[in-house]
Amino acid sequence: MSSEKPTNNNDSIIKPELLGGFRDLLPAEALMTQKVVDTIRKVYESFGFVPLETPGMENRKVLLGNTDNFNKSIFLARIVRGIEDKKIANDSWDQDYTLRFDLTVPLARVIAAYPDLPKPFKRYQIGKVWRGERPQAGRYREFSQFDFDIIGSNSILADIEVIQVMYQSMKALGIDNFLIRFNTRKILNGLAEAVNCLDNSKELFRIIDKLDKIGLTGVKSELMRQPANEYDDTALAMTENKAEKVIAFLQIKSESSDDVLVKLQDFFGDSDDLGQSGLYELQKISKALTDLNIPQKNWKIDLSVARGLDYYTGPVFETTLTDIPEIGSVFSGGRFDGLTNRFIAGSNIAGVGASVGIDRLIVALQKLGLIDKRDSVTDVLVTIFDPELQKYSMDMVQELQQNGYNTELYLGDDYTFRAQFSYAAKKSIPFVVIIGPEEMASGKIQLKDMNARKQELLTKEECFANLKSSLGK
Amino acid sequence: MSSEKPTNNNDSIIKPELLGGFRDLLPAEALMTQKVVDTIRKVYESFGFVPLETPGMENRKVLLGNTDNFNKSIFLARIVRGIEDKKIANDSWDQDYTLRFDLTVPLARVIAAYPDLPKPFKRYQIGKVWRGERPQAGRYREFSQFDFDIIGSNSILADIEVIQVMYQSMKALGIDNFLIRFNTRKILNGLAEAVNCLDNSKELFRIIDKLDKIGLTGVKSELMRQPANEYDDTALAMTENKAEKVIAFLQIKSESSDDVLVKLQDFFGDSDDLGQSGLYELQKISKALTDLNIPQKNWKIDLSVARGLDYYTGPVFETTLTDIPEIGSVFSGGRFDGLTNRFIAGSNIAGVGASVGIDRLIVALQKLGLIDKRDSVTDVLVTIFDPELQKYSMDMVQELQQNGYNTELYLGDDYTFRAQFSYAAKKSIPFVVIIGPEEMASGKIQLKDMNARKQELLTKEECFANLKSSLGK
Repeated sequence: MSSEKPTNNNDSIIKPELLGGFRDLLPAEALMTQKVVDTIRKVYESFGFVPLETPGMENRKVLLGNTDNFNKSIFLARIVRGIEDKKIANDSWDQDYTLRFDLTVPLARVIAAYPDLPKPFKRYQIGKVWRGERPQAGRYREFSQFDFDIIGSNSILADIEVIQVMYQSMKALGIDNFLIRFNTRKILNGLAEAVNCLDNSKELFRIIDKLDKIGLTGVKSELMRQPANEYDDTALAMTENKAEKVIAFLQIKSESSDDVLVKLQDFFGDSDDLGQSGLYELQKISKALTDLNIPQKNWKIDLSVARGLDYYTGPVFETTLTDIPEIGSVFSGGRFDGLTNRFIAGSNIAGVGASVGIDRLIVALQKLGLIDKRDSVTDVLVTIFDPELQKYSMDMVQELQQNGYNTELYLGDDYTFRAQFSYAAKKSIPFVVIIGPEEMASGKIQLKDMNARKQELLTKEECFANLKSSLGK
Repeated sequence: MSSEKPTNNNDSIIKPELLGGFRDLLPAEALMTQKVVDTIRKVYESFGFVPLETPGMENRKVLLGNTDNFNKSIFLARIVRGIEDKKIANDSWDQDYTLRFDLTVPLARVIAAYPDLPKPFKRYQIGKVWRGERPQAGRYREFSQFDFDIIGSNSILADIEVIQVMYQSMKALGIDNFLIRFNTRKILNGLAEAVNCLDNSKELFRIIDKLDKIGLTGVKSELMRQPANEYDDTALAMTENKAEKVIAFLQIKSESSDDVLVKLQDFFGDSDDLGQSGLYELQKISKALTDLNIPQKNWKIDLSVARGLDYYTGPVFETTLTDIPEIGSVFSGGRFDGLTNRFIAGSNIAGVGASVGIDRLIVALQKLGLIDKRDSVTDVLVTIFDPELQKYSMDMVQELQQNGYNTELYLGDDYTFRAQFSYAAKKSIPFVVIIGPEEMASGKIQLKDMNARKQELLTKEECFANLKSSLGK
């Protein structure tokens, strides 16, 4: 500590380090994020979704309910006042300030707190969330979520709209090869009922969700696994007969959704209520997507889509990229009726929505060559020939900005051309303007095209025409 | 606790309440915020500023330095893992996770951590910050800051650019009557030197900053105030002679900046180095603003502008609204060279920038009638006549969206027209489209103008022409 060794100067210098699991978005990353967010936001708004902002912290019970046995690593916070600081270790801990770990529970609080919000309430939200899990490659303790949800609609049209929004978002980003796979929890509940596993359906869905990773054989042996000991309540210990039934279910697939629906009807027969209501949902969704001319290559019924979270109650969705499936789901969600029950007993308010993985999308867009990585937005750098002439450079900056070009005046301390061009090159600024005494005298300016490595003496009109044809503004 | 009284149902219901000092931005507020942020962001980008995102939490020493005697109320955080929770009160407290209380110190960390960033580095950042002070009307524990800064330029051109950015931002928001008042810490240091108060300049500036509130008489008596007791080190106990000198300084004002500069020259004479360098800065800035044709009514040298924060080293700026000065400064900042010294001893990297108060601006824009408060972005609601015809409604939604109109399909459960119109009215959606069997048969649609309370049977072409003339899209 510096107070113990006040003569050691190095000791008082602080390392400019991030906390583990946190990161900076430097301009290049921040610009890509902004572009993706703006693009998707426009799609959300085209469907009438509006923004909502909730705080980074909520009361702990709001986020976790009354339980003390929550199953998450979360951040709690407390206020420390100046020199009281030294007492922290011994202080009792204020348990109220809890950092949000998703945007869905805060949404449920908003719905419960403002009953006058017109319903269906359609909101989107982008915001940071915090989780305490150990950081890994690509997994951070702080990350942004970008959700949209429809609250208060039981209509299957709302589920269909969620798929439409995902579809339009991917198209708006320039992605053509993606696949929206969907299923419904009701079908899965029908399956659970059919194999007498309704009480343990959570475990059943968890195993089904692993199909991609462990294959049919793996699923079957997981289903039949006996408990490791008397405390192991995760083993389903299914009979081979029942496990085969699950496998038969998972083998129902076809490029044609009508085909899948016929096979499902066969599987469930007429007796199973849960299965029938799920079948009805899949039929409705399939018909609507066909009616809307959403291409067959972009959607598919996939009975193995279960989604891990407990709270889904109806259709569930996952969007993967056909060319780079290894990236995983980039846009996923589902129906979660009843989320406000924590605040309003028995309210059972309907909800359906999805969340886009911005970071994964940016990785994908880069791999697909659909997004530029630039750390600048500047179109033109205006140099300063010499401080005496700076007025003319400043005027030119203003004129360029008024014409819609992002324009920087060179603000460095080194006025050599070498330094000024080097700044433009480092920031990949495509054009540089030079106004010296000769240009002043002739009423012209030098325009340097940094990519073409070409410099021309032009009138202002020629300069603007040149920029217009090159930059398309 | 619910675990103690499991039979009491009410006890398990949680109030959907916010923490004190935190707030929601419901769609109307969030939309206004977004509009203001987007407008200002465009101005920032037109000058070549690029976005940067830093984490919500930083290492405590990064934010506070090595001191234990920091003078702020801040939030510390820690990770709690599920059922370990019960041990919190007795646990030792992890002192690393500290929520940021501004965006400037994190910027300094970024500058120190990434030495390869091309300089001058021009970034903007919008983000939430957290402070532990007791909440008051209009003062929250969580609020957003929206800063822009130029790092690594000692040039006065950078200071001038900050004023230009503030000017262009106000204009872009549609505000004409505003006043950018500026001064420089160097002039104030010259004054402090002239009255032998350099060692106590912080206190001197604090008193000068209060001029608006306490007037010249108040300032004079504050300057001359004797210590209340032997521990009172805030009293300057100035002689009347010196206090009069400060008052004389504060009385230097004129609508003409040239006038102010001449009077300042008289005040300091030729001997005072600090005053002279300040004078030079004010001269340069005034000349540039005149050269740039920034109207005289929008800027002014004001020697009482001091800005409270310790870290300012050069020009300081404040923007107030001429028609509603009671709102206070909406855009302010200054030069703060040396901010990275905590991380790189003696680096003394130059910095200048400003921060806009979004919340205050929104209040102002509403008072000035320059921003609409709407809780919807939807242009058209397409109703569902009956579920049999929903395909036609869905097609119409798609077509309207493709033509650039934000369009909602009615997603409510109640298909009566009363319910559908009521939804449109509650959300102030200006147009409603109706497609029933008659419209189907005639190939036309009903377009209802909600504001004009007029409904017409139109061809699609007529409908789009109508929307275009009304909504201007």
